[in-house]
Amino acid sequence: MAKLLALSLSLCFLLFSSCFALREQSQQNECQLERLDALEPDNRIESEGGLIETWNPNNRQFRCASVALSRATLQRNALRRPYYSNAPQEIYIQQGNGYFGMVFPGCPETFEEPQQSEQGEGGRYRDSHQKVNRFREGDIIAVPTGIVFWMYNDQDTPVIAISLTDTGSSNNQLDQMPRRFYLAGNQEQEFLRYQHQQGGKEEQDNDGNNIFSGFKRDFLEDALNVNRHIVDRLQGRNEDEEKGAIVKVKGGLSIITPPERQARHPRGSRQEEDEDEDEKEERQPSHHKSRRGEDEDDKEKRHSQKGESRRHGDNGLEETVCTAKLRLNIGSSSSPDIYNPQAGRIKTVTSLDLPVLRWLKLSAEHGSLRKNAMFVPHYNLNANSILYALKGRARLQVVNCNGNTVFDGELEAGRALTVPQNYAVAAKSLSDRFTYVAFKTNDRAGIARLAGTSSVINDMPVDVVAATFNLERNEARQLKSNNPFKFLVPPRESQKRASA
Amino acid sequence: MAKLLALSLSLCFLLFSSCFALREQSQQNECQLERLDALEPDNRIESEGGLIETWNPNNRQFRCASVALSRATLQRNALRRPYYSNAPQEIYIQQGNGYFGMVFPGCPETFEEPQQSEQGEGGRYRDSHQKVNRFREGDIIAVPTGIVFWMYNDQDTPVIAISLTDTGSSNNQLDQMPRRFYLAGNQEQEFLRYQHQQGGKEEQDNDGNNIFSGFKRDFLEDALNVNRHIVDRLQGRNEDEEKGAIVKVKGGLSIITPPERQARHPRGSRQEEDEDEDEKEERQPSHHKSRRGEDEDDKEKRHSQKGESRRHGDNGLEETVCTAKLRLNIGSSSSPDIYNPQAGRIKTVTSLDLPVLRWLKLSAEHGSLRKNAMFVPHYNLNANSILYALKGRARLQVVNCNGNTVFDGELEAGRALTVPQNYAVAAKSLSDRFTYVAFKTNDRAGIARLAGTSSVINDMPVDVVAATFNLERNEARQLKSNNPFKFLVPPRESQKRASA
Amino acid sequence: MAKLLALSLSLCFLLFSSCFALREQSQQNECQLERLDALEPDNRIESEGGLIETWNPNNRQFRCASVALSRATLQRNALRRPYYSNAPQEIYIQQGNGYFGMVFPGCPETFEEPQQSEQGEGGRYRDSHQKVNRFREGDIIAVPTGIVFWMYNDQDTPVIAISLTDTGSSNNQLDQMPRRFYLAGNQEQEFLRYQHQQGGKEEQDNDGNNIFSGFKRDFLEDALNVNRHIVDRLQGRNEDEEKGAIVKVKGGLSIITPPERQARHPRGSRQEEDEDEDEKEERQPSHHKSRRGEDEDDKEKRHSQKGESRRHGDNGLEETVCTAKLRLNIGSSSSPDIYNPQAGRIKTVTSLDLPVLRWLKLSAEHGSLRKNAMFVPHYNLNANSILYALKGRARLQVVNCNGNTVFDGELEAGRALTVPQNYAVAAKSLSDRFTYVAFKTNDRAGIARLAGTSSVINDMPVDVVAATFNLERNEARQLKSNNPFKFLVPPRESQKRASA
Repeated sequence: MAKLLALSLSLCFLLFSSCFALREQSQQNECQLERLDALEPDNRIESEGGLIETWNPNNRQFRCASVALSRATLQRNALRRPYYSNAPQEIYIQQGNGYFGMVFPGCPETFEEPQQSEQGEGGRYRDSHQKVNRFREGDIIAVPTGIVFWMYNDQDTPVIAISLTDTGSSNNQLDQMPRRFYLAGNQEQEFLRYQHQQGGKEEQDNDGNNIFSGFKRDFLEDALNVNRHIVDRLQGRNEDEEKGAIVKVKGGLSIITPPERQARHPRGSRQEEDEDEDEKEERQPSHHKSRRGEDEDDKEKRHSQKGESRRHGDNGLEETVCTAKLRLNIGSSSSPDIYNPQAGRIKTVTSLDLPVLRWLKLSAEHGSLRKNAMFVPHYNLNANSILYALKGRARLQVVNCNGNTVFDGELEAGRALTVPQNYAVAAKSLSDRFTYVAFKTNDRAGIARLAGTSSVINDMPVDVVAATFNLERNEARQLKSNNPFKFLVPPRESQKRASA
Repeated sequence: MAKLLALSLSLCFLLFSSCFALREQSQQNECQLERLDALEPDNRIESEGGLIETWNPNNRQFRCASVALSRATLQRNALRRPYYSNAPQEIYIQQGNGYFGMVFPGCPETFEEPQQSEQGEGGRYRDSHQKVNRFREGDIIAVPTGIVFWMYNDQDTPVIAISLTDTGSSNNQLDQMPRRFYLAGNQEQEFLRYQHQQGGKEEQDNDGNNIFSGFKRDFLEDALNVNRHIVDRLQGRNEDEEKGAIVKVKGGLSIITPPERQARHPRGSRQEEDEDEDEKEERQPSHHKSRRGEDEDDKEKRHSQKGESRRHGDNGLEETVCTAKLRLNIGSSSSPDIYNPQAGRIKTVTSLDLPVLRWLKLSAEHGSLRKNAMFVPHYNLNANSILYALKGRARLQVVNCNGNTVFDGELEAGRALTVPQNYAVAAKSLSDRFTYVAFKTNDRAGIARLAGTSSVINDMPVDVVAATFNLERNEARQLKSNNPFKFLVPPRESQKRASA
Repeated sequence: MAKLLALSLSLCFLLFSSCFALREQSQQNECQLERLDALEPDNRIESEGGLIETWNPNNRQFRCASVALSRATLQRNALRRPYYSNAPQEIYIQQGNGYFGMVFPGCPETFEEPQQSEQGEGGRYRDSHQKVNRFREGDIIAVPTGIVFWMYNDQDTPVIAISLTDTGSSNNQLDQMPRRFYLAGNQEQEFLRYQHQQGGKEEQDNDGNNIFSGFKRDFLEDALNVNRHIVDRLQGRNEDEEKGAIVKVKGGLSIITPPERQARHPRGSRQEEDEDEDEKEERQPSHHKSRRGEDEDDKEKRHSQKGESRRHGDNGLEETVCTAKLRLNIGSSSSPDIYNPQAGRIKTVTSLDLPVLRWLKLSAEHGSLRKNAMFVPHYNLNANSILYALKGRARLQVVNCNGNTVFDGELEAGRALTVPQNYAVAAKSLSDRFTYVAFKTNDRAGIARLAGTSSVINDMPVDVVAATFNLERNEARQLKSNNPFKFLVPPRESQKRASA
């Protein structure tokens, strides 16, 4: 962890520009939080194929962090209809598998149907579209501002996706309110009700609530060159509002994807290992290619190019937004960054792992703690952190700059807690397996530990520690050396057992 | 357009840091706009040599976009006196030709009078100053924050200049109010009256309103080492307030400029072609140079340097702020980026064309639509857009995230309409030639089309489109393929004629 | 100065991304300042080993600039206990010498005790910690957001340190209120009282006010693996509140530092020269190394690497945050950037001198003016400037965009004045030696002069100057040429003497 952080900070320093949060600040006094709460979603919108739950973004702790949180559940064969947002989103897949797509304007349609298949009534129509991706439990998906996003559940297990929208991002040039722009349907966008609460009153126009419904029919007929029936469908006219943002697809979607992949799905747990392998390959494209016979000159050239591009801090021309990796698995099946079998595991994703996050200025952390294990008191150097409990429960304490306890309570599965920048936090698991995901509002979020090896106490001279805390020198030594753990502290019992 | 956007986004992704808007966000709820208006200037300040019209920056749609708009008209031989602003400006020359100058502190005075000429009473005084530039109709001029700017009309046609001031820029460390700091004169700065409206009351000090008038005489006498008479002139004492920000120059200004250029002016239309050629040369300096005999070694060296600097994302050491290009023509006589003889033409300028815009974080687009031609429904991914109609009129529709029509009306010459980030917009020309300029609050503003080739609909799998819009598969195919146009849609009549 | 600025601006332009202030803007109307005041600290908190004075950050001129100012005085053997802030700090050492430390999470503990020494009761405990730095009068110390900082005075002269906290920095993701997070003690953090004024009421929890005091004892016992007594000390329980943020260290601290350095201290004035030499060496590591015999190949290689890294705008891989230079001397004993023996001297530090400032987005200037000498009317292009008078007094005038005098008065030692971005300012010394430090909210702060060589007037064509100010051409020439000074203008008497 120390090394990771050092590396991260050093790179950050070298590249400078990527260290800045580039975020909006909270309004005056927004962060004078004397009490935090572990919050459940306070609204629930049912759809034909699932439901969307939201947390009130006007809640003070979300306003301080300038974020909005929501949770979508997709039943089998459910499609979350395409939408885009005025701010970047980080989505964590709590459960399930499926497909997602994003549309990057100007990028080519790289997935094409073969010539023979799909002979509809029109004859030889061959569909083509932009890349479609598969997601699985434990994935972080990065959705940039304004980019159309859809997802689909092709499995029996319902998909549960937690989404953080960073309205404080400088990519958002509107105000702090999270906005969803739906391409289809008749449903109210999920954060609209909170906008109403803030005083603005507007007439409900029930002729449709999507981005097409506000245009006049003749405009769309001309622009799309389609008949009125299709325009009506686009505008969501006469559609049942209860159909909603997540619709059922009768018979399921047939999506062009590499056949090997689809074949693997039914195998269940094996698939995940396969995907991890796949990820490995994605990260080492040159090794993969160099297996094929090449003359030495070519290798040499590629190697030197690679070296150069690394020095410049990017991955070379081949990594455009059109082919950028948009997801990374940080779930329990991924290889952890911090691991202690008696305490638990932590895995982070930053813009170093998933370069698109540099654009979004977000990162994330997945943690799992065994019963009575702790993560030590620490604070976020350069980010707000939104903790969402996935499984089990833990006791958390959060302390503000006045030394006051702003939270001392349980965080249980399904609840979210904001830990503002620089506030100190510690946790102890109360379950056999407490797991959480933390969304962080900086693509290179760093922490400073207040206890254990490499903590701020350990890194100061022992005399300074003694004078600071009014301790004898030998007490200061104890303080610096008694806890040999870096971040995760196993429960006392297992520590004894281990040392016995 | 698709390619252009792909390129722009890809580069953006590669260089990351330049994608962020780096702008301030609007205040809470500032962007809950339920109705937009096509606005005319609401104030008009006459000067000796012209007039300045302003739009109220406190209007909600400008507050949401954090911009201020104004329009200056300069009669023949009129000088807009030097001033600077607390925010970057993008100026579009709607009409006329003339000179402009900017003063970059610390840059050398590269324009010098020859030894013999200009023997005034003082004898051999040789004037020298920083570069003076020529502008013409259709130019975008980029004025950075705090940089002194002046312009002068040496032709008979009045100069009309539309100026967008991006007060939301992070280069502005003051509040959102646009401020002009005049170096001379006695006139009220044009946005001061709107400051008054907001509650602050201040006594009008009519002894002068320029940046020198607030200093005491003795300070200026000491600092400038000039007599009291000159100091009085500097401070605008006893000057008629109606002289104003734009003054008449009796006999005209004589400015040091390359003689060939001045010779060309009278030729009128030819001059524009010449200037375009000149621009071409400026963009291809290596081609130009390589025509002259050089040995191979030298060529090689330059080539590799060029290659390197390109890889780094800048134009090499020779492009300093002192010699940076500050204008680019995007008017009707320039080479368009999107062109369809039956529909119209569009030309954009981003920081890829005019690198100084990377500093200002602004870009612009000039469009021209034939009667009944449309630009398809689309939205701005990462920018607010301020549309100003130059000629003719068009019907525009703008839709917000709730699917409500926030604008459905005509935009006619001289009026401005704000299209906030992510709001959908479409237009149909009602005139033979509707032309507009759109100022965009991002130096790499990108759009996403909602109809036509390469639209977000086209880039999704046909099955997703069908399920999303509740369509049969063949209807979804129609939706994906019926409109073969990318951005500009010709009127139905001409489409038929063309296909006949 | 002209060259310096030109260089700075050019580089700024080349590297673009570092020009943007990346700062928050002030709230609406916050900068409609019609009167500025030269302010003294308005609060004073005594500690055992010194005192901390603060300026009210809610004062309008600080709110406009989004900064907070404070002044700490440390008596002999006093330790400012470790703390961190939610915003970057720039500290100027007005007086005294001592040690400071910062803890960079993840960086190695590079200072180690030798094997033999320090045999305490525990036997062979060898302390190790991160780098400890020495500071002296005239130093600027850069403290990044969230980084733990402590300082210690080991000399007889009290240390006086002025600290600017840039709450408007985008590194601060909380609100505008400056916050200190103390690692130890029981005292109120120095800016808390201003938070109270703003309406929030909170119960004073007098069990301790540090970052540990908000955790429950059992959490800390588990996390630190120490006994209850040590935890009580950490939490500041039963500690006298009057001990405070600055504590006395009985017998003084013994800190691991290179022995040569410690030996030098008693020599007094010689030490400063030595340190300057030391700084020189730090800046020219290659020269130093190349004195030792090396074969040509090696030199060649290093040289080309150096060349490359320069081209990329960073100092190569070896400059990580772990070994980054954190201080630079700009005091009266340092080599000035602008110097005129009859007028005075000015020395600036930007991110070009001290790269860590690129991260903090701050810079500073130290100036010294002889009696009746002036610095010419000028304005800050891209920064707010907070002037703090160190010695003597001067008459200052500040002018806003309406040409109104917002300040015309004396600035005397110990008072601070905010000069907002783009406001014009001029000063004339009333003392034999008026010295000041100016903190600037941009890491490449630039100024534009309104008088003298290379001023905005000089850089415009003489005809434009004449027309602008309504002057005869020969008067315009006088205006352009009469003042031969660039920034510092000697008093009239000495000018005459010099020319005689």
